[in-house]
Amino acid sequence: MTELNKLFAATKQAFDLPEGVIYLDGNSLGPMTHASRTRLIDEMDNQWSQKLIRGWNESGWYQLAQTVGDKIAALIGAPKGTVTAADNTSINVHKVLSAALAMNPGRKVILSDSGNFPTDLYAAQGVIAGLNDGYELKVVTPEQVFDAIDESVAVVMITQVDYCTGRLHDMASITERARANGVKTIWDLCHSAGAMAIQLDALQVDFAVGCGYKYFNGGPGAPAFLYVREEHINNIQPVLTGWMGHASPFSFEQQYTPMQGIGRMRVGTPSILGLASLDAALDVFCSVSMEQIRQRSVELSEVFMDEVAKCCPQLELASPTDAGLRGSQVSYRFPQGYAVVQALIDHGVVGDFRMPDIIRFGITPLYLNRADIVKAAQIIGDVMANQLWDCDKFKAKQAVT
Amino acid sequence: MTELNKLFAATKQAFDLPEGVIYLDGNSLGPMTHASRTRLIDEMDNQWSQKLIRGWNESGWYQLAQTVGDKIAALIGAPKGTVTAADNTSINVHKVLSAALAMNPGRKVILSDSGNFPTDLYAAQGVIAGLNDGYELKVVTPEQVFDAIDESVAVVMITQVDYCTGRLHDMASITERARANGVKTIWDLCHSAGAMAIQLDALQVDFAVGCGYKYFNGGPGAPAFLYVREEHINNIQPVLTGWMGHASPFSFEQQYTPMQGIGRMRVGTPSILGLASLDAALDVFCSVSMEQIRQRSVELSEVFMDEVAKCCPQLELASPTDAGLRGSQVSYRFPQGYAVVQALIDHGVVGDFRMPDIIRFGITPLYLNRADIVKAAQIIGDVMANQLWDCDKFKAKQAVT
Repeated sequence: MTELNKLFAATKQAFDLPEGVIYLDGNSLGPMTHASRTRLIDEMDNQWSQKLIRGWNESGWYQLAQTVGDKIAALIGAPKGTVTAADNTSINVHKVLSAALAMNPGRKVILSDSGNFPTDLYAAQGVIAGLNDGYELKVVTPEQVFDAIDESVAVVMITQVDYCTGRLHDMASITERARANGVKTIWDLCHSAGAMAIQLDALQVDFAVGCGYKYFNGGPGAPAFLYVREEHINNIQPVLTGWMGHASPFSFEQQYTPMQGIGRMRVGTPSILGLASLDAALDVFCSVSMEQIRQRSVELSEVFMDEVAKCCPQLELASPTDAGLRGSQVSYRFPQGYAVVQALIDHGVVGDFRMPDIIRFGITPLYLNRADIVKAAQIIGDVMANQLWDCDKFKAKQAVT
Repeated sequence: MTELNKLFAATKQAFDLPEGVIYLDGNSLGPMTHASRTRLIDEMDNQWSQKLIRGWNESGWYQLAQTVGDKIAALIGAPKGTVTAADNTSINVHKVLSAALAMNPGRKVILSDSGNFPTDLYAAQGVIAGLNDGYELKVVTPEQVFDAIDESVAVVMITQVDYCTGRLHDMASITERARANGVKTIWDLCHSAGAMAIQLDALQVDFAVGCGYKYFNGGPGAPAFLYVREEHINNIQPVLTGWMGHASPFSFEQQYTPMQGIGRMRVGTPSILGLASLDAALDVFCSVSMEQIRQRSVELSEVFMDEVAKCCPQLELASPTDAGLRGSQVSYRFPQGYAVVQALIDHGVVGDFRMPDIIRFGITPLYLNRADIVKAAQIIGDVMANQLWDCDKFKAKQAVT
């Protein structure tokens, strides 16, 4: 067994995975770690129920958003004290986009791309409507982003890895061009944080947001996070003001004064259960580096693509073949993609579907090994070759796809 | 045993309370129900870990914010479909205040009072700064609110029960005067929902917000809720836009279109663990009416005030003596209030402290009976008579008071 194999054999043991399932959807909802379960039991049996209100001081609750933020910071190339766990990604986009626009008052264009996750665009539309001051959301194709960055743009807001295709933006070149043109950068890391090394500070990114429940395995609806470049933090006047971002929350002053530090981006009382689960889940990253995760993800993705290509000529690869242009998922196009995904789930391979015809498979080395990947490809081959997806029960759409 | 005694003996059994503690702080953080614990174990062992992404369809997660909202609606006199669980109170104030101001475009005054919980005022200050259009927050004393409502006011935003003193505003008369003057109403129910009957619909309240972790016992940082009067809902253009409020979240359209119904006030992915705990905790209200809870709360509060008055002449009552003017807490003033609270905790009576000199005791009949109340008063008497609070270890302030 190689050193890397040993490492990942150990991390796989950290997860509570159902029997008979190969889970290729950790890019949508990460599985449960034993650590999260143990922690939540402790929060119930020894903290909330026993310490009651004292938990805020004695159980680390009051610091927990920052504790989690600092753990995440270390995983995305951000200094301690520049990341906080908070709310959800959509709300965090509202916060950082408002802050970024205020830093570029003479410019009215928010640049994004059609590969962005829609909620980021919705947040931008909401911010624009709220400001009611001539702002404009300019949505170009992912390929046009680089050239569209010029001195008319206030903020470029981009998701690093496309949720549909797994296409990976070049954070370095886009951020550099933005900086050269006085454009503030917001990177959405929902589909990259926890899957690859990210260097927010070294690349001089201004703002970032990301998700706690995908590659970070925090649990369904886990708190999200946000990053602000260190030199900006204390210059931001938060738009979403609340007592958890106040300089002195327990003085109960009538006037809002933001605290010094990233904590000013917090608003109300955070979900302690959600934070606790995420906090515990993040510890699996202590034993393995992002570079190792990325290396193994690329290896497994290539095995997967090779195997699927051999047995499923019907599936059109929607992800870039070049690993340097791809995140940690592999996507295919197929007209009956929804039914295929349902049939695969029925046969023990869990991926998911995105409109109009995208089948997504997340490649997550923390709990998937080569044998899982090969077996998954075989099952996909069987479902496709025998058209096992072609029956009514797999075609009836559910509320969440 | 009277019928009411039997009822509340049963509800007390629903809670997991620590031995040797009389918990008079449910107005700050409700204790854990056995139902919440059972539910969270199930969410971990049978839903998240086993169903993984399928939980969104098969475990009720996708509907959970509305499921919880509808349960809360029934407890605050609101029709089904007018309340949703969402985010935290501070963020919900941002949402409903923005919506309320948009309904009264010619007016620039937000009226509130000095008894409001500060985060509501902070949210108002943030909304005003964001709109940057001449809005003004006018803060009067609680006694001045009624007379200050006139046709210059856009929105009156009031917390029904004062977090410090327990003083109860008259929702009926204030709402009626607001309506007569074309003023939109926002009621913050953080310190009243779950403690007394509230008639949002009958009184024609426009908006309300409230807390899931106080009298609703949802757990630390449980999701909050918001209410919008039925006739307003589909006329609101949400300012906090996100995919969970979209008309068709899984169509992944680039343009934000709010869904029909209260769901448009949702933004991003909600905390499922937090919602699940709250959902389970709310079931204790199935066996007892708000009127019964209120009746018992008044009885217990009067016993408590009588006993404390007898044995603690040093404590100055800060709450109204008239039950009709008081919520479900009893507060006292004492210069060394912080140390007294710490000494009481050390002696098994948990209340809390609020600046500058307020000692608060929450009276929560679901898990407190007459014997608890009498015993708590005796312990308070002992701590006060013997000045047990007067030592250094009780005077050192912690981060959260």
